[in-house]
Amino acid sequence: MNIILLSGGSGKRLWPLSNDIRSKQFIKIFKTADGYESMVQRVYRQIKEVDPAATVTIATSKTQVSSIHNQLGDSVGVCVEPCRRDTFPAIALASAYLHDVKGVAPQEPVVVCPVDPYVNNDYFEALHTLSQLAQQGAANLTLMGIEPTYPSEKYGYIIPETSDAVSKVKTFKEKPDAKTAAEYIAQGALWNGGVFAYRLGYVLDRAHELIEFDGYQDLYDKYATLRKISFDYAVVEKEPNIQVMRFAGQWKDMGTWNTLTEAMEEPGIGKAILNDSCRNVHVLNELDVPVLCMGLQDVVVSASPEGILVSDKEQSSYIKPFVDAIDQQIMFAEKSWGSFRVLDIEDESLTIKVTLNPGHSMNYHSHQRRDEVWTVISGRGRAVVDGVERPVQAGDIVRMPAGCRHTILADSELKLIEVQLGREISVQDKEKFPLEIVSHGKEKA
Amino acid sequence: MNIILLSGGSGKRLWPLSNDIRSKQFIKIFKTADGYESMVQRVYRQIKEVDPAATVTIATSKTQVSSIHNQLGDSVGVCVEPCRRDTFPAIALASAYLHDVKGVAPQEPVVVCPVDPYVNNDYFEALHTLSQLAQQGAANLTLMGIEPTYPSEKYGYIIPETSDAVSKVKTFKEKPDAKTAAEYIAQGALWNGGVFAYRLGYVLDRAHELIEFDGYQDLYDKYATLRKISFDYAVVEKEPNIQVMRFAGQWKDMGTWNTLTEAMEEPGIGKAILNDSCRNVHVLNELDVPVLCMGLQDVVVSASPEGILVSDKEQSSYIKPFVDAIDQQIMFAEKSWGSFRVLDIEDESLTIKVTLNPGHSMNYHSHQRRDEVWTVISGRGRAVVDGVERPVQAGDIVRMPAGCRHTILADSELKLIEVQLGREISVQDKEKFPLEIVSHGKEKA
Repeated sequence: MNIILLSGGSGKRLWPLSNDIRSKQFIKIFKTADGYESMVQRVYRQIKEVDPAATVTIATSKTQVSSIHNQLGDSVGVCVEPCRRDTFPAIALASAYLHDVKGVAPQEPVVVCPVDPYVNNDYFEALHTLSQLAQQGAANLTLMGIEPTYPSEKYGYIIPETSDAVSKVKTFKEKPDAKTAAEYIAQGALWNGGVFAYRLGYVLDRAHELIEFDGYQDLYDKYATLRKISFDYAVVEKEPNIQVMRFAGQWKDMGTWNTLTEAMEEPGIGKAILNDSCRNVHVLNELDVPVLCMGLQDVVVSASPEGILVSDKEQSSYIKPFVDAIDQQIMFAEKSWGSFRVLDIEDESLTIKVTLNPGHSMNYHSHQRRDEVWTVISGRGRAVVDGVERPVQAGDIVRMPAGCRHTILADSELKLIEVQLGREISVQDKEKFPLEIVSHGKEKA
Repeated sequence: MNIILLSGGSGKRLWPLSNDIRSKQFIKIFKTADGYESMVQRVYRQIKEVDPAATVTIATSKTQVSSIHNQLGDSVGVCVEPCRRDTFPAIALASAYLHDVKGVAPQEPVVVCPVDPYVNNDYFEALHTLSQLAQQGAANLTLMGIEPTYPSEKYGYIIPETSDAVSKVKTFKEKPDAKTAAEYIAQGALWNGGVFAYRLGYVLDRAHELIEFDGYQDLYDKYATLRKISFDYAVVEKEPNIQVMRFAGQWKDMGTWNTLTEAMEEPGIGKAILNDSCRNVHVLNELDVPVLCMGLQDVVVSASPEGILVSDKEQSSYIKPFVDAIDQQIMFAEKSWGSFRVLDIEDESLTIKVTLNPGHSMNYHSHQRRDEVWTVISGRGRAVVDGVERPVQAGDIVRMPAGCRHTILADSELKLIEVQLGREISVQDKEKFPLEIVSHGKEKA
């Protein structure tokens, strides 16, 4: 099975665990035997359990690449959108990537699926069936229709011609009000979960009709010039030959704190204490200090280095404008090489904790307007400053005056405290260079 | 006016802003023209406004001395109890301190008052009257009786002989149930707010009757051997000649989050965002990141480096057992020389931010089982390592291997990041020495 997972944009609705650079699909919230996994880890694991040979490609933006590799490892396929251009350009680019980079033949089937459904393995078995239906070619597009459990206003509806397991699609309906949704359901309508399958060549043909391009690299290069247009508008609405396959298993959308906490197996993740009079309270605490809840009802509490949310669960769906108004430095980020967390902010200094994964290094870079000091607190590695490489371990200090080029390479997991000093500390003040080692220091750094 | 302020013990009921080493009276919660002041700062300011010549002595434990000097300056009188021995030994020690250290004559009046009443200046004017009544000597003890506003179960009651402004006391009653309290109030009873005045010699005589000691220093030295006994039991219950003065002004006890938030002039202190559907919600946030509250009612949210409380206001009075069960390192402390805050805890390292007040220094000390590194992030001062003093400023690094003696003296406000490294990091691993400077380093540290 070739599967393209669409990994969407920034998820402020789950602030403070999601923000501009950390999307909800990366929050580690689902209990496993030995800890917690994120939505993207859960979905990837489920796909591999159902089809160990599946080729998974994640279509996403540059900002998510670090988190994806950090959580899924380096072997997962990632098709990076240079900028956001809605779903049709994204699916066209991912399809061109499968064809030109991964060598998938035009007659092979491809399944497209959002990265964040909260489902069981039967869902991925259904995707496998969807892929087979696409390969058989009875229709140009094969959609998954989810059997509704209530007249939701949050989803589009697919109305099939028959109530068979697989049926031609009669028509599509936009998100309705609850009363209209109930009427649709009475007619046998299904939720449109944004899942569909096709033969690769079909979407490549549509892409070439709408965009003049010569293969994946050319499409990538001109991506910023493409018109924003949805796959529904560009392809689905113009295609008369569409079929839909019913799916009646569990399917939940984890878009708000309310729906997300419903999927939690226990009331607290992280250090959380709830007294006996708490009812329907969930705590997600990423901080090192405890959250104590007393006498609350229907409340979600979430604490991260970015901030603290305390909200009635229903009200939490109105969070976005409040979070948009918060103007604050990013306090935590996962990177391809590890992560960093801001520990302290002063007018002329910034102190962060940096964790490097074994075998990884940050970019070789310099800053014009700040000095930096590293104090290694655990692990072993090699620091490079202006071309001189020196071994470092816990207790070693590395001074980096403004202008010097520097990086650190982790031989084991390596943690350090970085103190940045200067009057104009900014993430923009960074120039990257190819790593060049001119000598090896014998002494400790 | 000679006034002894009793500054009580650790206040876990206001966790996470109070804890074992930080009592509620030091929380900066009351709005002033240019910021916030704590209960102890508010009371001290009010006393000085009413009687600029007042001699204020704070009777407290060792653990609070740093916070008192940090918040009130070095000129306030502090009588330190070497250990906790209940109110009679504490008041006896403070009385001996006034006589032997401050030179207060036996016939002079003294007023004893808790450090944490939330009152207006009329309360301190009443204390002044109480002091004058004690000096006139119509009774051996002159108490303040607070006119009850409701039949509270939280206070003891004083039943006066008459309803005059000043009356002989008929009897005292322990904390009653609400029904009994209402009966007391019908008889003209007053709340016992723990405020009383006497001629200094009177309490010194009682102290010498019950304890064999020869002046303040001797009493201090044998303090640990004294029996725990309350002033009420040792003195008040045995004294037939007691009068009470009525006080009808505002008087609030700030012992719980519920009463404390009633005294807040605005819903939030620190970074707090409340949406329109919040009702009777108060946020006290000491962290650098925002707290967002949505759709809550009758809730207090408090966040500090120690943890986060989210509680129904009524329920918050049951907090103590939950906080007792939290076993956690102290994350923030005020010291006489400034403050520190824990930024990061790892298995074999601890990173803290240290702020030194101008002109202050930490003790000259060493650690056996950990190395330390300072990175100065702002200010100017002098670091002393093994007797060698060197000037330091932002960007300078000081390395302190295990065993070396070290301190830093702040010439301006000075902030630094301290990284502690070792397998057994413990607050117990500290040996203090008198400062000895053997040479002055010319280079930067």
